[in-house]
Amino acid sequence: MTAPQLPASLISTLPGRYYSDAQIFDQEQDRLFHPYWWGFTHLSDLDAPGKYRTAQVGKENVIVVRGHDGALRAFLNVCRHRGTRLCPEEYGEVKRNFRCSYHSWTYGLDGKLVTAPHIAKMPDIDPVEWGLKQVHVREYLGYAWVCLAEEPPSFEDTVIRTVTERFADETAIDNWAIPDLKVGRRISYEVKANWKIVIENFMECYHCASIHPEFVGVVTEYAKGYAAQHYVGRGISFGEDAEAFTLDGTGGFGKLPDVTEEQDRKYWGVTINPQVFINLVPDHVIFHRMFPVAVDRTIVECDWLYAKDVPDSGAALDHSVELFHRINQQDFEACERCQVNMKSRVYEPGGVLVPHEHHIGSAFHDWFTKAFGEP
Amino acid sequence: MTAPQLPASLISTLPGRYYSDAQIFDQEQDRLFHPYWWGFTHLSDLDAPGKYRTAQVGKENVIVVRGHDGALRAFLNVCRHRGTRLCPEEYGEVKRNFRCSYHSWTYGLDGKLVTAPHIAKMPDIDPVEWGLKQVHVREYLGYAWVCLAEEPPSFEDTVIRTVTERFADETAIDNWAIPDLKVGRRISYEVKANWKIVIENFMECYHCASIHPEFVGVVTEYAKGYAAQHYVGRGISFGEDAEAFTLDGTGGFGKLPDVTEEQDRKYWGVTINPQVFINLVPDHVIFHRMFPVAVDRTIVECDWLYAKDVPDSGAALDHSVELFHRINQQDFEACERCQVNMKSRVYEPGGVLVPHEHHIGSAFHDWFTKAFGEP
Amino acid sequence: MTAPQLPASLISTLPGRYYSDAQIFDQEQDRLFHPYWWGFTHLSDLDAPGKYRTAQVGKENVIVVRGHDGALRAFLNVCRHRGTRLCPEEYGEVKRNFRCSYHSWTYGLDGKLVTAPHIAKMPDIDPVEWGLKQVHVREYLGYAWVCLAEEPPSFEDTVIRTVTERFADETAIDNWAIPDLKVGRRISYEVKANWKIVIENFMECYHCASIHPEFVGVVTEYAKGYAAQHYVGRGISFGEDAEAFTLDGTGGFGKLPDVTEEQDRKYWGVTINPQVFINLVPDHVIFHRMFPVAVDRTIVECDWLYAKDVPDSGAALDHSVELFHRINQQDFEACERCQVNMKSRVYEPGGVLVPHEHHIGSAFHDWFTKAFGEP
Repeated sequence: MTAPQLPASLISTLPGRYYSDAQIFDQEQDRLFHPYWWGFTHLSDLDAPGKYRTAQVGKENVIVVRGHDGALRAFLNVCRHRGTRLCPEEYGEVKRNFRCSYHSWTYGLDGKLVTAPHIAKMPDIDPVEWGLKQVHVREYLGYAWVCLAEEPPSFEDTVIRTVTERFADETAIDNWAIPDLKVGRRISYEVKANWKIVIENFMECYHCASIHPEFVGVVTEYAKGYAAQHYVGRGISFGEDAEAFTLDGTGGFGKLPDVTEEQDRKYWGVTINPQVFINLVPDHVIFHRMFPVAVDRTIVECDWLYAKDVPDSGAALDHSVELFHRINQQDFEACERCQVNMKSRVYEPGGVLVPHEHHIGSAFHDWFTKAFGEP
Repeated sequence: MTAPQLPASLISTLPGRYYSDAQIFDQEQDRLFHPYWWGFTHLSDLDAPGKYRTAQVGKENVIVVRGHDGALRAFLNVCRHRGTRLCPEEYGEVKRNFRCSYHSWTYGLDGKLVTAPHIAKMPDIDPVEWGLKQVHVREYLGYAWVCLAEEPPSFEDTVIRTVTERFADETAIDNWAIPDLKVGRRISYEVKANWKIVIENFMECYHCASIHPEFVGVVTEYAKGYAAQHYVGRGISFGEDAEAFTLDGTGGFGKLPDVTEEQDRKYWGVTINPQVFINLVPDHVIFHRMFPVAVDRTIVECDWLYAKDVPDSGAALDHSVELFHRINQQDFEACERCQVNMKSRVYEPGGVLVPHEHHIGSAFHDWFTKAFGEP
Repeated sequence: MTAPQLPASLISTLPGRYYSDAQIFDQEQDRLFHPYWWGFTHLSDLDAPGKYRTAQVGKENVIVVRGHDGALRAFLNVCRHRGTRLCPEEYGEVKRNFRCSYHSWTYGLDGKLVTAPHIAKMPDIDPVEWGLKQVHVREYLGYAWVCLAEEPPSFEDTVIRTVTERFADETAIDNWAIPDLKVGRRISYEVKANWKIVIENFMECYHCASIHPEFVGVVTEYAKGYAAQHYVGRGISFGEDAEAFTLDGTGGFGKLPDVTEEQDRKYWGVTINPQVFINLVPDHVIFHRMFPVAVDRTIVECDWLYAKDVPDSGAALDHSVELFHRINQQDFEACERCQVNMKSRVYEPGGVLVPHEHHIGSAFHDWFTKAFGEP
């Protein structure tokens, strides 16, 4: 089946094998996941010396840890001796060092090899050369970001520019004061779909009227199907009856102090390739990070961020959290229903994007094709 | 280990890798499953406008649906927009249309694209060109049969000829009036074996005395080990004590009205390559369809068909059904015990067929080799 | 990441892909598992005519059976007719013959084809030529050993020499009278790690102080981290407070009668490539056999052997067994923590061996490289 000649209304997605071929996923890990900045975890997981978090980034398991000097550092989670996973847990805290459970090689929070049994008999082992393999790390928007590349791309030209370009005004996002917010809830989803299907889903709202009744009940403008991501500076308005971004439009937490009137009562979404989604509403922020683990399986970790005093006051968050939790469930089920057909002859040349979705081509597929190259 | 020189009594099966190599299974899907007619489901699953059934045929998931015009149609179960599985359930019924759950693209029962959100802005989309991908479908023996080929082989020269050639008289099978029978029971089996091992098992009765005590207790002639499939016009006789094709030879439902005296008290089996088995006994018909899903995993769906008044009268079917249900279980366990050795060096050149099994070579392996070609 | 220039203290392990690439595992089965002698099972499992044991050796499932003539024989567990697994159970006993459950082809305990249904019509079938495929088998140290090679290497030059070279005196091991011992306990472990990681673990005690507190509590010399395997004739001494090789050093069973004073109160370990470990302590022997089933999964079967009168007297063995059972659990958990990192870029050139571990290079990696060749 050859690719049909497409009418002008339609442009093609990537061919089906890009969503279903394990070998292409393997290439993506080297060409797309390792060379880009990666939203890793919220800084509150790392808010004291020795606190660490681990997660899978492409082919590597990574540790991010707060040092006694207050600096954040990231390392491959691999003992240099015999390859043991140094920190097998996702979250943890050590006093001064990482001690490998197998042979007790011990590394400082700066990655240096501090000691090992009988190290005195190995005087030629340089503690830095034989320290943990360091990975680049940055702090931004309250999150630790890592990059596995030896020479990462400019954080300013990639991550920060993507965020600021979304708004007409470069400082617009500062009004949410995201670094000051607190994680009120974290939910991790296992999605049986390729990560690119999850991105495509997030980038368009042509599906919103079909699968998100609660969402379009609040953000009524979305019932029209337009995704506003590609309109610079444009948020999507709540309905007249909606007081807040909650399941039924009632009972939110007002608005964050610096969010302007113009920003209020709107929803704003940002996609940072390849794996972060940020959702801004007046009283909170929903922050997604994807961790693709197989061609057809993606872990999505989603944080709900609130002004510190909201969770601190013991306010019930369920009603607020539930709206995007349902959106997530509805989206991921849709993604899974697509994944099962990615090897069909119908999808061999790819699916199609309607005008409401054409920006996926320019903002994601073009980026992908340029970064990935040929399989 | 090279293939041993075989004595005249023995002929070889296919080499072991044909039963165990995932790449050969992939090639079979393209070369054997897609180009042939496929017994899909009983027409009673499709007996009203909008009733549909889905199943996996080779690499494709297929919908068969009854139209409002009474015609049966078959489609690939893939939305043309973003590839969503249109009908995720195995059985279902729609009123007028198939509406995709993701973006609400909506197709008529004839496959045409009826509407889509904001379709008015896509005036160049032809509703037929962008309708569901149609698949060939036929009705025969009370079943819907589908073929994924663009140009299917002649149904008459393949399926119908296979059935009629089994009997001396072309109309002999009509006496069972299969299209008028009703499904009394359906059981689905998951067999951890290659589909060709299941066919080889069905085609010979050299194993019957070993593993089917109840079967040879009724169809006593089978204790001799001959499979009658290759003797044109020949059924296998029940034992003198067996009144019926049931677990213990008692308590059947007499004989279907047009089954002749000559056909009575006999068992007849037919294999239609690549995936249908039909078993005829005086008072019912057992109809198997195989759905291979991996090189070492095959779903077998088996229907027990009775004269309409039998299940309608509320007659207890268990005693009748149980005989072939046990045969199925016994056969599939044997198939699974072969599958685990298909990669052994002993089976590298294949196993062997004894004289009672030689017809498997001419009626199945020769067909296979001609249709499949070289790996 | 290229291999770092190693300081003199360190030598490299095998590259990471040797522990994680399924294709290399496939090659190992042909090049390493089939050509070498394999510790199969204890002879007490085969102590009467017709008693048999089955297990997976590389790609083949093997039966070892005791004949009516008292001789041990081994066969591929594959019926010559259609490839059925002849003995699907791990342990069993037959009276005179193996009868295939599928078509009743029947083989003597010597492997010859005894009969088959309608064999009279197949006069050209030679009962030896069409008997079970025989595999080489030997008895040594109370165990059946098998080799899948057509022409196995000399048992004396491989297995026996490995054992005797471990001791200064060729007959030293005879003092344990291993063939006379009785299996007091058998535990089977499923380890999610490559078999070579398990061997490397067994060969060094640099990890003992880190993960085996009970072990170094008894065999206190091991707290220093030396593995004594490469010191000919050298056992590792128990601590002064340890009376026996038990969880807390108390309550053993004395010493086997012929174990000398010089051998007493010591631990001795022997590795026989590719899959047997023997551990000798004064009052018992712990005998490991590995059965690798995938690149990242290894079944380890471990027997605890005692003087016959110990289990026969009904003595409680738990306290004695528990020590090495814990060592096994501690070791296998460590191995699994390494396996998950074998695809990391850190391990691409391999890990490193410290001076206490260098003997792994000469005694295992050199053997491996010579036997395996290039991938």
